[in-house]
Formats: sequence, structure tokens, C-alpha cells
Amino acid sequence: MFTSTPVPRLIALDWGTSSLRAYLLGDGGALLEQSVKPWGIMRTSKRSFAKVFAAMVGEWRRRWPNLPALAAGMIGSAQGWCEAPYVPCPAGLQSLAAGLASVTEGGRIQLHIVPGVVEEGAMPDVMRGEETQIIGAMELDSRLRRRARLVLPGTHSKWVELRRERIQSFSTYMTGELFAVLRDHSILGRAVPVSATPVASWAAFERGLMAVLERGTSGGFSRLFSARTLVLRGRLRPEESLDYLSGLLIGEELRCATHRCSKRVPLAIVGEDSLSERYRRALALFGFGDARIIANASAIGLWRIANASGLVQETQRRPRS
Amino acid sequence: MFTSTPVPRLIALDWGTSSLRAYLLGDGGALLEQSVKPWGIMRTSKRSFAKVFAAMVGEWRRRWPNLPALAAGMIGSAQGWCEAPYVPCPAGLQSLAAGLASVTEGGRIQLHIVPGVVEEGAMPDVMRGEETQIIGAMELDSRLRRRARLVLPGTHSKWVELRRERIQSFSTYMTGELFAVLRDHSILGRAVPVSATPVASWAAFERGLMAVLERGTSGGFSRLFSARTLVLRGRLRPEESLDYLSGLLIGEELRCATHRCSKRVPLAIVGEDSLSERYRRALALFGFGDARIIANASAIGLWRIANASGLVQETQRRPRS
Repeated sequence: MFTSTPVPRLIALDWGTSSLRAYLLGDGGALLEQSVKPWGIMRTSKRSFAKVFAAMVGEWRRRWPNLPALAAGMIGSAQGWCEAPYVPCPAGLQSLAAGLASVTEGGRIQLHIVPGVVEEGAMPDVMRGEETQIIGAMELDSRLRRRARLVLPGTHSKWVELRRERIQSFSTYMTGELFAVLRDHSILGRAVPVSATPVASWAAFERGLMAVLERGTSGGFSRLFSARTLVLRGRLRPEESLDYLSGLLIGEELRCATHRCSKRVPLAIVGEDSLSERYRRALALFGFGDARIIANASAIGLWRIANASGLVQETQRRPRS
Repeated sequence: MFTSTPVPRLIALDWGTSSLRAYLLGDGGALLEQSVKPWGIMRTSKRSFAKVFAAMVGEWRRRWPNLPALAAGMIGSAQGWCEAPYVPCPAGLQSLAAGLASVTEGGRIQLHIVPGVVEEGAMPDVMRGEETQIIGAMELDSRLRRRARLVLPGTHSKWVELRRERIQSFSTYMTGELFAVLRDHSILGRAVPVSATPVASWAAFERGLMAVLERGTSGGFSRLFSARTLVLRGRLRPEESLDYLSGLLIGEELRCATHRCSKRVPLAIVGEDSLSERYRRALALFGFGDARIIANASAIGLWRIANASGLVQETQRRPRS
């Protein structure tokens, strides 16, 4: 008995600060195999990128020696394997595909790398990796192509204005990193019992969001200390205080990012994990109940960029939704 | 030859989280001797407060066995030597003096402790130590007594509304702690060369303040990442990035704290070190050019509270300015 075996066409890598995801993609960007390792660029030395790459995709390369490989993320930064200079806003599929960098070894290109995006101006801003998720999100949801606003939650959340399939402008919020440093190194984390279960308290999270909404333009920054004083006065359980803090910080991000945001422009959340659900709930409370979550956008974004750059030829076009 | 030797009347202690300051005060709160040690409550174990106290003031106690001792600060918290429960707002000299706690050993009171202040309400807030500086500031500057606003810069800055010599309400901003955790544990501190000189760049500091002013109601929270991107794009020198960050954070504090603040109410900065000068410059940029700095308020505040509680009798009243 024979079934038609999908033919691998591309090795696609999402190589960030803390983790490395590898996808084996077939025609139309179909996902054939994948793996994840904690081998982000901050966890491996600069000299060992080639070894990490071999360990991650060597098996695929042995079976299919001519498969091209394309990576996005911090691997293309100055601290990465090979710097892929930023392309300016407005940035879209064509300028990203034209800006690929490449790692050559023994006269052969081992890996292509997607450039990041820079928005210049009085306050420059940069992204690396998110541009690829954004390309993927537009592929997965056609309603975003004409005009949309995206939020990509994370260590450094990105808020992105899309116009005619291009990144028009964007802003970074350090919300995830702020939460982590306050939890791990400030007095706000000290109230939390070590044995506290990590179950999210939505009530505490929403209480933090409400504290921001009630403050009006003063915002949540001015209320950070309440994550401690409410516990001190017996009005918030210690094990709830981090969810409350998360509400204060995400609420402040939303306050700043949405305050001139038209509710008629489609808004989508691009991300995988429970953090996206947290943002979905927060946005609903801020009056953006229609925000949908788009997951697994990186692999399809890499496929689209590989296609636009000629690394792979589309033999069987994935129907655009 | 005989000169009239001042008679010691009170041992006054400012015993905080990171340091312990001891003052030997004479009539009218005149400063006779003082010493500072890094013996704050977070740096000594709970069991060793008695030893630390003996090491700090034992010499004075041996020379003047009946001298009363009064402390303010975190030594009166649940993590301190003896908890002095908070007194509620509005709080003034009388309620603070009535709320003293005391440490007794061998049937004798070793030390009296000034209570902190709590503001209840939807968002409770607390202070410990600042209430004593505030009492001292009103003693040092009579213009503050009827109505004033004070800022006490620090790890946890306090903004205080004074009415008729009482603390009417106040808010805590975690600005100093935020700066420290971002400098030491986030990507914003990583840009700074280890050998960077600690000389303040006022230009970079003011650039951070301006970034907040220009953002309007969105504020400085949304611009934290610019402390990295400006360096990344070669538009801010790495060694200036922490002063810029300081401007963003203090600017955001000022934006929140002053946005409904009448310029006709006297505004004073209570504090000793270079941080007060930083706040003075920032306030001037925000349109509060008249803010004056009041230093060394703790010792005189302790003297006033000791007097109001009957621990010492005022034999020679210090003229109120």
C-alpha cells in the first residue's frame, strides 16, 4: 500500500532569545515535523551557533541534503550568528525577502536569516522575529491585510499598525520583562509564598486592570505599590498579588496603546500561549471584545518569506483564507 | 575656662531598610553627635536588633543612662523589632505621638518607635519613616503648615498632601526600585559599559523627561524601550542611557503626581542626597520651578514627636521659622 508522502521543501527556524523552534515544512507551508529546544541565543555562546544548528536540523539535512533553511528572530541580531540589518517601515513581504542575510560555511549557504524591522523617527523602535509572525498572521487571516492593528504579547510586546499588507508603524512595551523583574527582584514578589500554586486568578488580574481604568490618564504606573499595600492590609491574598500586578502592567500597556485606537479597525492578538488569552480578556474589558487570537504564525510567515525570496517555489498554493 | 556644654536630651534613630542613622540631640533638637551604619533591617537578622542597638548607642547610654531613645522607620514594621501599628490619615503630631510602640527589656523600655501612617480607601497606601521627616519639614519651614504638597524621593517616593499640619493623603511611586531592578536585571542595564563613569548626564536625564512630556497622557511607561533603541540606533551613548531611563521614570512619576496639582500650593522636596536635586530639576521642567529642598528633616521630626509624647520636655523652644 502506498500513500503519497509529503515532500519536505523548507527548514524553517524561529530562533529567539530563549528558545529555538524548528519546523520541517512541505508544499504550501504544510507542517511535517517540528521540535523545540531551549537553545535561544542568550543560552548558547556565539561560537556554538553552528553546532546548535547541526544538532537541531542535522538529521533533516542528512535525509534531504538540498533543503534550504530560513530563520527569523534574534539569531539575526548583532548578538546572533550573522547580522541581518533592519529594513525600514513601511515593511512588507517584498522588502523582508529582499533583505535576507546568509550564513556561509565551506562555500555553501547554510542558513538564510530574515531581517528585523526598524521604525526611525524621534523615538526609533525595532523588532526581530515579530515581522515574520505578522507576515504569517496576514496569511492566516485575510481580514488583516487592508488595515489592522496587531498586538504580539511577550517579553517585549509589540503593537503594530498594518496598512495594505505592510507594517506601517509599531511600538514596543516592555511589559513582560517588567513583570519578570518586579516578580523576581522587587518587594512585590516577596509577598508571594514560595509554595503558591501557579493557577491564575482571573479575579485578581481583572482587579488590576480595573485599577488602571479607574485611574484615568494617571494610569497604572502610579498604582504599582498597591500590589503590596493591598496584601499588607489583608485585602488581597498573597498568592493573588502577581496576577493583580499582571493586570496593572498589561492594563497600563493597553491604556497607552489603545487610547487613540478606533474600534472599527480589526484588532488581532498574535501569539500561542496563555499570555494571549490574558490579553484577550484584558482587551475585552477595555472595550475591544472582538480581538481574535492568531496562533502558529511563525512557520507560515517563514514559508511566505522563503517563497517571496525564491528560496522555495510555490508548487501548490495554499488557498488564502 | 568653662564653656556651657550642651546637655544631651534624646537619642533619635532613623532606622530604615538599608541603613541606620543615630543622632544625639540636645535642647530644641540641636544636633550634638551623629553616626550612620549600613545596619538597616534588611541587613540584620531579626534576632540581632538588640545587639545592633547596643553597638550603635551603647556608648551614649553608658555616659547618659537615662536618655530616652526614639526610632522611626521600618524598625517599626512587622519585619522590624517591634511592630508599631499604622495610624490613619489625617495624621499629625498628636496621633503619631499617641501611637508610639516600645521595646522593653529587663523591665525597662529600651526604645520607643514612631508608628507609620496608613491611608485606607479603595487603594490603601502606607508609609514608615516619612511621617517623621514630614513632621520635621513642617518644623523647618513654617510655610508648609497650612497647606502644601511634599515629595519625598526614594526607593518608594511619597507624594503627600498636607493640610493644617496634618498628612491628609499620600501616594507611593516605586520609581527608585523600578530604576534599580531595570538597571540591574533588565536589558536596559546591559547596554551600559561596566567601566562607565557614574557622572550624571543632565542632558540625557532631561531628554528622558522631555520624552514623557511629549507623550502627553500616554506617559513614559510606553517609552521605556527607547532607552535601548536610541542606543541601538547610535542616537544615545550607552553611558548616558541610565540617566535617560532615570528621566523617563521620574518624568512618569511627575506626570502622574502633578497632573491635577495647583501651582499655587507650595511644593517642597524633602530629602538629602543628589536624588533631591534630580527631582528639583525635573519639577522645574514640569513647570514647578519654585520647589525647594528641605534636608535633614528626620532628626528634628523625631525631636518634635518625642516632645509631643512627653519623652522629653522642651526647656528651650527652638524658634519656629
